[in-house]
Order: sequence, then C-alpha cells, then structure tokens
Amino acid sequence: MQKTTARAYSNIALVKYWGKQDAGLRLPMNSSVAIALDQIYTTTTVEFGDQYSKDLVEIDGDQFSDEESQRVIDHLDRVRKLVGIHLKAKVVTKNNFPKGAGAASSASGFAALSLAATKAAGINLSQKDLSILARFGSGSASRSITGGVSIWYTGQNSQDSFAEAIELPKEWGLRVLLVFVGNLKSKKVSTTEGMARTKATSPYYPVAVKEAGKNLQRLINSIKDKNWSEFGQVVEDECYRLHILCMTTRPNLLYWSNETVAIFQKLLNLRDHGITGYFTVDAGPHVHIICQQSDADQIKSDLGKITGVNKIVDCGISGPAQTIDQHLF
Amino acid sequence: MQKTTARAYSNIALVKYWGKQDAGLRLPMNSSVAIALDQIYTTTTVEFGDQYSKDLVEIDGDQFSDEESQRVIDHLDRVRKLVGIHLKAKVVTKNNFPKGAGAASSASGFAALSLAATKAAGINLSQKDLSILARFGSGSASRSITGGVSIWYTGQNSQDSFAEAIELPKEWGLRVLLVFVGNLKSKKVSTTEGMARTKATSPYYPVAVKEAGKNLQRLINSIKDKNWSEFGQVVEDECYRLHILCMTTRPNLLYWSNETVAIFQKLLNLRDHGITGYFTVDAGPHVHIICQQSDADQIKSDLGKITGVNKIVDCGISGPAQTIDQHLF
Repeated sequence: MQKTTARAYSNIALVKYWGKQDAGLRLPMNSSVAIALDQIYTTTTVEFGDQYSKDLVEIDGDQFSDEESQRVIDHLDRVRKLVGIHLKAKVVTKNNFPKGAGAASSASGFAALSLAATKAAGINLSQKDLSILARFGSGSASRSITGGVSIWYTGQNSQDSFAEAIELPKEWGLRVLLVFVGNLKSKKVSTTEGMARTKATSPYYPVAVKEAGKNLQRLINSIKDKNWSEFGQVVEDECYRLHILCMTTRPNLLYWSNETVAIFQKLLNLRDHGITGYFTVDAGPHVHIICQQSDADQIKSDLGKITGVNKIVDCGISGPAQTIDQHLF
Repeated sequence: MQKTTARAYSNIALVKYWGKQDAGLRLPMNSSVAIALDQIYTTTTVEFGDQYSKDLVEIDGDQFSDEESQRVIDHLDRVRKLVGIHLKAKVVTKNNFPKGAGAASSASGFAALSLAATKAAGINLSQKDLSILARFGSGSASRSITGGVSIWYTGQNSQDSFAEAIELPKEWGLRVLLVFVGNLKSKKVSTTEGMARTKATSPYYPVAVKEAGKNLQRLINSIKDKNWSEFGQVVEDECYRLHILCMTTRPNLLYWSNETVAIFQKLLNLRDHGITGYFTVDAGPHVHIICQQSDADQIKSDLGKITGVNKIVDCGISGPAQTIDQHLF
C-alpha cells in the first residue's frame, strides 16, 4: 500500500460515443476514436490505509456533488474487489480545466483514478486491463488510459471493449485548439443521462448508430490514404451526428451556444480561403478544432476576435495515463 | 386582358416541407402546415398584351437573376397554356422584405403571380385551383394562396395536392415575431437545390419523412385539445427536423448563424420564467417566434437586446392572396 499519484489527459472524440448497448458493463453502441490532449488533464492521488474509517474524496477542493463523490467510491470498490482488500482510501483529484462543462473531465478523471488506485493498492495492470477498468467508471476514460490517438472497440463482452492506440500521418503535424466559450458552469444534463435519454427517445438513433460505423471506416480510410480533407469531413459529420441526436432527444438537448455557431461559421469562411480547421463539439458549447500546425496561428487569431470566446488552449497529442512523483496531499 | 395587381403573404411552416416525391409536379414528400404573415408580403402586377414582344420581368427593381426571371416566365407559360393564349406579358413584383434570405419570398411571390396572371389573362380560378397552380411555381406558394393557417396535402396526384385553411383556437391570440438577424444577403444554396441534395444524401431522410407525418398528427391534436405547450413543442421539433436534415446533407448545410442560436437560448431561458415563445426557422438564419399576444412585448424587448438582431416584425395571421387596386406600373 503506497500513496500514488497519476495523471491522465482529456480526450476529444472524432468518431463519437453516444449511448450504451449495456449500461451495467458500459459497453458502447459503436466503436469510437479520440485524440488525447496534452494541455488538459486530471491529476489524482490515492492512498489506501487503515487510518481511514471511510473513503475521503476531494475533487477540485469542494467543487463536487455527493453523486460525483459516490461515483468515485464505486470505482474504488471495483479496485478493492479486484485486489481483494477492504481498506478505505483518501482520494484527492485536481482538474487543470473546468469540469462538467464539456471538456471530458470524467474521461481524464476515471483514467487517472484507475491508474492511481490500482498502483496504490499494489497491483500493476496491463494497459488493456486498465482501459477496461477505467471504462466502468466512464466509457470515454478507456481512451484516456491509452492517450495519443485511440480507438475504443464496442466489444461483445467486457473483455473485448477497450481502447488501443492508432497512428496519424506524422506530416499532418496535428494540433487541437480547444476553444472555451460563454460561461463555464456545469451543464444541466449529464452525459450519462443525455445518452440514455437519446437512446430512449430520438427516432434517429438506429440510423445514427449505423452511420457511426460507416464514419469509423471512412476515418480509418482517410488516415490510411493521408486524405486530410476527408478526415476533416468525417470529423464534422460526426460532430453533427452527435448534436442532431441531442436536438431530437425529448426533451430536446441543445448544447450549442451562439459562440459555438459563430466559430463554425468562421471556420467555414476560413476554409473558403484555404485555412482548414475542422470543428467538433462534445456535450457542451465548447469547440475543439482539428488543424495542422501551419494553420493554427491564423485560426487562433481569427477566433480570438469573436465575442464570448474566453480562452483558446493550443494542444498537442498527449501520451498515455502515467504515474507522477508529486502527490496532492 | 386587363392589367391586374395581386398581393400574397409570406408563410412560415410549422410542419415543414422539405423534399419532393415528384419534382416535375412539385408533389411534396409530406403534408405541411403554415401560418401566413400579415406584415410580410409580395405585390405583383401582370399585364398581357401584344405591345410586348417578349416577357418583361422586374423583381424589386433589378434585384434578380436570369434564373429567377426564367422561373417567372415558366409560370406565365403555365397560365398561357391554361387559358390558351400566346401573348407576352410584363410582370413587376415587389417584396416588402429582403428576398432569398429565408423569409419565403418564393411562396408569396408565386402566389401573387398566380392570382395576378390568371386574372390578367381573364380567368377566375377557385382557391383550390389557384393553390395547385401556385404549387407548380413553388411548393410553399400553395399555402400563401390560402393564407391564414393552412394545411397543404401531399396528394397522390396533382389535383390532390393543394392547401386549405384550418383554424387555431381564437383565445391563443397568436402572434408571429419574425426576427431578422445578421446580414440579409441571399443565401448561397437555394431551397429547391437544398431539398434535392438532402433527399439524395442525408441518411436520416426516410426517418424524417415518417416523423413529419407523426408531427402533423400531434399538431392537429394539440390544436383540437387547445394544448399550447404541446403545440409549441411540435413547432420546435419540426424546426429541428428540418435543420438536422440540412446539417446531415452532403455537403453539409448549416443555415443557422450565431444569432439564431442566441435567440433559441434566450427563448429557452424565458420559458423557465413562464414566457412561452416557440422558435422555428426556415432555410436561412432568421427566426420566427410563435407566441401569444400577452407575451409578445416581453419577448420583443428581450430579443431586441441581442447583438446582431436587426429587426423584429410583429405579425398577425394574414388573409388569403387577393387582388388590389393599386398597380405597380
């Protein structure tokens, strides 16, 4: 039993995960692809010990709900069951970005927790097994274990559903600009809740799941062919696929703000002038822009002029979840 | 043969028309419902005579393309064929709003032209036959013949596909606020072209057509039950239905601007405070808000504060297309 700290990176999905085929196992309806971002991460320290009479959880100081705390404790239970211990733990976690606002804090959070908690409990899991464990906390966390660019397989059962790394053409020099807009308060409807509602109520869901499969194949082909514009087109088709599902969920989920669409329109306008930044948006108003190094400065400069754009974080592709030396308590 | 002037009103669809089952006959894929707006109209004067050696067409001075002019001439040909004459005509038409920017200028335009041209050619058509004739010029024009609140039937053949009036509960005191936003230039992709592209390329189209049928029934039930919030919900579901089809058309059609979404979000916020304005958007960025008289002032005041909102036109429900005394030339 040794106090352990781990760091994992947020990821942005290019082929989106939205809905589960098995809610208990968190098996997704379709395979997804994501890029992990080196500037956006969660750091988590875990210590098991008999000095703790109950689990103590702290997320960004006191910025968390009972529900969030319980979700962490449930994940500690999975680790305890795996290792065969009954010790309580202290968990301190810090996000270097606002959580619950569409920047995938649960992905980096449960990836960091999975790595820190297993190491702290004295076991070393393979990347595949860590990815599976993280998936139980939050589906997209499976991809933050892998880091880099990863594909998370649907799977037929729990052991089949994990993420593994894939490669992009090096010459693309890919950057992801994360544009934070408007107010950064937590969204009203959580991702988990939104997904369940969509599957239950959107008449477009069955077609959309089939489209996800086609778009995954298109994305893989575009990488193989080094076809940048097709790669970007798939990214935007997938952004629309997610949000049309949300818009047709009842009650409707409109995650976009005016700034979201202002950014879309500016990027479409820049594209007419040969600057190719492709947009994608998760379950919130913020926009991730996939671009090449050579266009990044121009895009940042133009988007920075839009009213309501608060901050643009220029990210490279991160490594996998990893342990670090510096503890949070 | 007598110079005749007619006026017809723009209409905003509550259940949307988007795509044709028969392009030649302009038979729509689904039945639709619309409200005609008393403040937004087209006035058209037509004169047939042997003093004209060719058709002379003028739309808003010189604000029209060869293609638009040809579409008018094609419609004159339909009238000539119907009446059995070969005389050329002069047509002068004026919109009291910017055309081609999502305010349904082709609807009011072809309705006014159908009425003026048939009268000028010396025949009196029934409202049903005028609606059918107008449909050949522009599908939604069939609804501007009827005016008021109208339903345009899909039809199995040309004679079955026309609009007729329906009634809303009088106590709703319904208003339509037309909010013009951003720049008012003509859109890049015409409605006709957009519809054809969507039918050919959006994987969601077959489901969306079925949804239109369900939403029509929901709308009719909500009117019968005087259920205002359900009526509003259908209006917004139909707005989303149209725009998700456009967003999933390839190349993608994103008609919304930042102001469009700013208005959506403001209305959703007002709704939390008991002010019920429901949004709908045609193929452009401008927003039509369906509300009750009692809420109209509050909504106008709040939306007027949004940057990029150029003008709010407070409309009642119009009458049918009609001839008027004052000629344009």
